[in-house]
Amino acid sequence: MRFFFRRGLLLASLGLLTLTAQAQTTAKTDSLNIRRIYDEALLRGQSYDNLRELTSKIGGRLSGSPQAQQAVDWGKVTLEKLGLDRVYLQEVMVPHWVRGIKEKGEIKPAKGKGVVLNVCALGGSVGTGGKLRAGVVEVKSLAELAALPADRVKGKFVFFNRPMNPTYVETGRAYGEAGDQRRSGAVEAAKRGAVGALVRSLTLAHDDFPHTGMMRYDEAVAKLPAAALSTNGADELSQLLKADPGLTFELEMSCETLPEVKSYNVVGEIKGSKYPDEIITVGGHLDSWDLAQGAHDDGTGCVQSMEVLRLLKATGLRPERTVRAVLFMNEENGVRGGEKYAALAKAANEKHLAAMESDGGGFTPRGFAVEAPAATVKKIQQWQPLFEPYFSGIITAGHAGTDIGPLKDQAKALIGYDCDSQRYFDIHHTAADTFDKVNRRELELGGASMASLIYLLSKYGL
Amino acid sequence: MRFFFRRGLLLASLGLLTLTAQAQTTAKTDSLNIRRIYDEALLRGQSYDNLRELTSKIGGRLSGSPQAQQAVDWGKVTLEKLGLDRVYLQEVMVPHWVRGIKEKGEIKPAKGKGVVLNVCALGGSVGTGGKLRAGVVEVKSLAELAALPADRVKGKFVFFNRPMNPTYVETGRAYGEAGDQRRSGAVEAAKRGAVGALVRSLTLAHDDFPHTGMMRYDEAVAKLPAAALSTNGADELSQLLKADPGLTFELEMSCETLPEVKSYNVVGEIKGSKYPDEIITVGGHLDSWDLAQGAHDDGTGCVQSMEVLRLLKATGLRPERTVRAVLFMNEENGVRGGEKYAALAKAANEKHLAAMESDGGGFTPRGFAVEAPAATVKKIQQWQPLFEPYFSGIITAGHAGTDIGPLKDQAKALIGYDCDSQRYFDIHHTAADTFDKVNRRELELGGASMASLIYLLSKYGL
Repeated sequence: MRFFFRRGLLLASLGLLTLTAQAQTTAKTDSLNIRRIYDEALLRGQSYDNLRELTSKIGGRLSGSPQAQQAVDWGKVTLEKLGLDRVYLQEVMVPHWVRGIKEKGEIKPAKGKGVVLNVCALGGSVGTGGKLRAGVVEVKSLAELAALPADRVKGKFVFFNRPMNPTYVETGRAYGEAGDQRRSGAVEAAKRGAVGALVRSLTLAHDDFPHTGMMRYDEAVAKLPAAALSTNGADELSQLLKADPGLTFELEMSCETLPEVKSYNVVGEIKGSKYPDEIITVGGHLDSWDLAQGAHDDGTGCVQSMEVLRLLKATGLRPERTVRAVLFMNEENGVRGGEKYAALAKAANEKHLAAMESDGGGFTPRGFAVEAPAATVKKIQQWQPLFEPYFSGIITAGHAGTDIGPLKDQAKALIGYDCDSQRYFDIHHTAADTFDKVNRRELELGGASMASLIYLLSKYGL
Repeated sequence: MRFFFRRGLLLASLGLLTLTAQAQTTAKTDSLNIRRIYDEALLRGQSYDNLRELTSKIGGRLSGSPQAQQAVDWGKVTLEKLGLDRVYLQEVMVPHWVRGIKEKGEIKPAKGKGVVLNVCALGGSVGTGGKLRAGVVEVKSLAELAALPADRVKGKFVFFNRPMNPTYVETGRAYGEAGDQRRSGAVEAAKRGAVGALVRSLTLAHDDFPHTGMMRYDEAVAKLPAAALSTNGADELSQLLKADPGLTFELEMSCETLPEVKSYNVVGEIKGSKYPDEIITVGGHLDSWDLAQGAHDDGTGCVQSMEVLRLLKATGLRPERTVRAVLFMNEENGVRGGEKYAALAKAANEKHLAAMESDGGGFTPRGFAVEAPAATVKKIQQWQPLFEPYFSGIITAGHAGTDIGPLKDQAKALIGYDCDSQRYFDIHHTAADTFDKVNRRELELGGASMASLIYLLSKYGL
């Protein structure tokens, strides 16, 4: 391995060269303060240790579960240790869906042995009420389903098998595009008289993990059970169907939705020294799917948001505006926590300068996606050179986050923390989303990157 | 997890806005061709499958070993399958060092039980000739050693315990700075009458893996055995030394250097359509340390370099200049392959336009480091906007690579492929550098990035 030596980044230097002398001094102060934030994170960052606790002591924490409540307690205690100005809970009612037995899925060819596939219920699905066996019709899109003659679908499983587009460099874009079959597949299948939906997992990996995730029902049509197949499983089913279009599939799931449960957002706050009434929110979601530990989704966003407060305190960079870390409840299957937070902020007539969310995993930072008027995006982009020494200066206009979405009309800018997205969907919503998939430095760099932008926002406003 | 949606990159658009109309058309062609390269890599990339073969069928392949010869054969056959204009070997004599028995290391406190540590010989070290037991003196630098009274060192192990600097965002920089103790520790210890050198592993991780790597001797002083301790082991030894400065350490290693062995660089070539005499070399090193599979170091660089040729062929983008993939032998402990390649090029009076090396792992691409006169660096930086849609547009002046280093006086530019460096040193030169640490998309994106710059170099020259 070569060792690196470089003469500084062109972009960073160019950035500074275009400034006036006074602006250069300010930029230098900011640059030094951001360096202090990164140093603190890289030398004494707490995100990784906090994540280890959350994932290994509590693990998966789906809304309404005892683990979700443990996570609330853990979040509150952990924030309280930081010596903040205020730590509190926001009550919110959340859905309570449970998976039940380990799901079973098997291809039953016309003749020969059955082929067992790894399956999992999609979040929110009804169960099958015992074993459900039916033929299978494969489609690549909702449109293709709509165009099929009714008798091709009636009484069958609709098998949605469109892969995510591997040519997108940003994997989240491929996820967004392929997601309609998971979210709406069961409803569209029900409209055509099907008995269930089988959905190819949303991932670019070729493996045996089924990926869960939220699906929705429409009260106007029957609620069909919906399950995810792994990508390998989907390929196998597709291939067998070609040879044997009359094969059947047998699915067994006992998942169900129980009465709603009282739960909480967890909030920790540092009061602004100059403008305490202007609020900057930074958050991740505390709930996770039940299949694994919810490490990258979204334990990392939670511990990074908490770390933002710790970094500001540890570096003595007391924010001029109020900074609030929020561990949102129920992003995965309801967004009740995000909605509640925005509703309470509105009711209290709070003034939100900005809200930031980290919910794309704890990978190496790349920059930020800003949801705001063009002039505001541009203003934030002026800080780009300050982030370039850390390779986290790519600031674009784009979707910011689900939990902070409901704040859209109240905040001047919604900001999504952006990090490298190549590995995220390999483990997303599967049993493989575990602590060991998180790299300490990548995670801590993310917290530093978030804290740096929040430091600038708290100093300059928008 | 939020899904992404963004309105395009600011930098990319800015880049294009400054061009004339004609230049815009050219830039558009280049942009489309680069998109074709990335599509081919993301849809049908072969790097990952090739790497699986190299690492799982052959594994570790230290220069002079039977596995290194198997890798040469594999490289040649695999290049031949690509239907290139020419595939050939370059003979080169290489050192042949062997590790011998699994090394043993144990702290022996004045009283109480011994503490066994994971150790490994540094590459090139002599053995201990049975068990070697001696006291230990800890230093943090070569300068600190030089300042010690001779009687503090004489007859002891010198324990070099300076950690890599965790505050550098580029881990390679920290590696470069901390590396002197591994490379020169044994020589400096010998000058002071020590009996051996114990060196803290070069990594930012806190774990139990010892990291091997090259060390050097000086014929003027005694050749002392030199071993690496894991970072946890080094911390433990340091702590025990504080309480018990009189403790001893027992080391047993049977490594030795055997007579040199004939080996090879493997070369595959596509002749330039317009300027066949102008050569662009792209390479990685085929040898690896013996402890693991040599996946990120540097199987990834090899398969990416081969993939560059495949991508140019598969996309029909026949290069105007000759492009040569070189699998260099012996980067790890001698650089004989790199030196031989440059010597042969010089003897044949070849004209090298540029040489590129991938030897920083197969992680997500970030850009390139260019070793060339400022005007040449600037010329290459003009292509930055073309890489920004792929987040691989950070082009800086900096060290390019070890194997291509000897070409410095013959090539207009040496170029290092740059990728994310956070995880590299966690596994570098250890038993953990295995295929499963490589992500398919990250690896294939790297090959696409390299091929894209080589496409531009072959079209425009320098």
